Amino acid sequence: MNVTRITSTGNAAVKHVCRLRERRDREKEQLTVLEGYRELTRAREYGLELTECFFAPEMFLGSNEYPLLEALAAAGVKLFEVPPFLLAKMAYRDRPEGLIAVAKMKRHTLADIPVRPDGLYLVAEAVEKPGNLGSILRSADAAGVDGLIICDKCTDIYNPNVIRASTGALFSVPLAEAASAEALAWLRANRIATLAATPHAEQIFTEVDMVQPVAIVVGTEQVGLTQLWLEEADIAVRIPMLGKIDSLNVATATTILLYEAARQRNWRVAQD
Amino acid sequence: MNVTRITSTGNAAVKHVCRLRERRDREKEQLTVLEGYRELTRAREYGLELTECFFAPEMFLGSNEYPLLEALAAAGVKLFEVPPFLLAKMAYRDRPEGLIAVAKMKRHTLADIPVRPDGLYLVAEAVEKPGNLGSILRSADAAGVDGLIICDKCTDIYNPNVIRASTGALFSVPLAEAASAEALAWLRANRIATLAATPHAEQIFTEVDMVQPVAIVVGTEQVGLTQLWLEEADIAVRIPMLGKIDSLNVATATTILLYEAARQRNWRVAQD
Repeated sequence: MNVTRITSTGNAAVKHVCRLRERRDREKEQLTVLEGYRELTRAREYGLELTECFFAPEMFLGSNEYPLLEALAAAGVKLFEVPPFLLAKMAYRDRPEGLIAVAKMKRHTLADIPVRPDGLYLVAEAVEKPGNLGSILRSADAAGVDGLIICDKCTDIYNPNVIRASTGALFSVPLAEAASAEALAWLRANRIATLAATPHAEQIFTEVDMVQPVAIVVGTEQVGLTQLWLEEADIAVRIPMLGKIDSLNVATATTILLYEAARQRNWRVAQD
Repeated sequence: MNVTRITSTGNAAVKHVCRLRERRDREKEQLTVLEGYRELTRAREYGLELTECFFAPEMFLGSNEYPLLEALAAAGVKLFEVPPFLLAKMAYRDRPEGLIAVAKMKRHTLADIPVRPDGLYLVAEAVEKPGNLGSILRSADAAGVDGLIICDKCTDIYNPNVIRASTGALFSVPLAEAASAEALAWLRANRIATLAATPHAEQIFTEVDMVQPVAIVVGTEQVGLTQLWLEEADIAVRIPMLGKIDSLNVATATTILLYEAARQRNWRVAQD
């Protein structure tokens, strides 16, 4: 196993990883940063190409890390051993686990979303906070969503905070990024009903049929869905609010809707 | 309106507010910090006693702030006008809104929880992250919960990050803090069924009766419920996970369970 040792914060490879904290740099280079054994393993299973991996053995939590490093070396990933202080400096997490990798971003288009006769889809429009997008991904995975379409994105999905908050769901839910009009056209062409969540709807979300092929559409944290979806959606529903607070977090609302769909579908997972 | 002007970071009242960032100091003094017009207004409606209020008019978002300050002055709250840089230094939020108050904590006991023939209760055991406890409060409000019992607390409910994340629900949901054994005894004495959420249960949460008086019991982020609740709960349920990830965030799981209860109850709000 060919390993380069780095001890200086001034090293070019270290500085490069730190620069990838900036969205601008990630997008220019089409690279992102992954952390920890589980995230690296899931990303590889998913087909992401890793280019470099930095590790600090003193920080390892278990004994799985070395076989992973061997596999990475065999796949041509450059390995760098660094002291813990340097790894901590490069890390996003409060408690780094001794492994940080650079990975090539994948492009996600509507062609990546499987069309199924009983498909359940989620459209997230302009969700701003990485933590919310991560939570939405996690709930989408749990509720057996066949595809998540991210429209007019404000947060880039390869933000390391999205990856972390999704606890790996970024690498399990089929994804597309598309403009809202393009997504709407794709859903119509595939005869998938659109269901918009808005506080102004009359129907309660549990009163509508979510067994049909359906895409649940949720909007931004602050202002909800844009006019396009409010006007063009086939079904509009609201989530009853029984207390004094007048809004739910977008990830919470999404979870409630997805689990109602999963309940109506009798917890069935889509079949290919 | 009697206002004291402060311009120095060395001022004792300013330093006192900054010290209340520490849980130890909050608990010793039984004081917490509130921020922004909505939070202060809700806290007052709820009956919290404010002792001091710091304001920076340049940061006000609207014109409601002055009537509120007048009301505070009339109620004997000490008012301090500070420059924006000083208010920002005292603030927890990224975008402070020009109002920060010191408030006396309330004690919450089981006697504060209303017992209702069709009551819906939530028991949260040892939830660690302030953001999660805040989200749980928000969902409890939205789902019409009659009372939230916090057991063996790891996060203090008057952590300003809990208050913020709850978007005011801390001041709308009846609360108690109690040891788990005490909470269990109270629930039994009041003939409220206990429903524990655990991945190891056979029954799916939608298959059980949540129209009866019931307390939903949720555990820590990391290890779930303690043995006491797993052994003593009347009903054990699981939330199906249809994807590749094997766990849900505790606030997300709580929301799913609460909204199922609200659905079964036909979105009925408890009557006194």
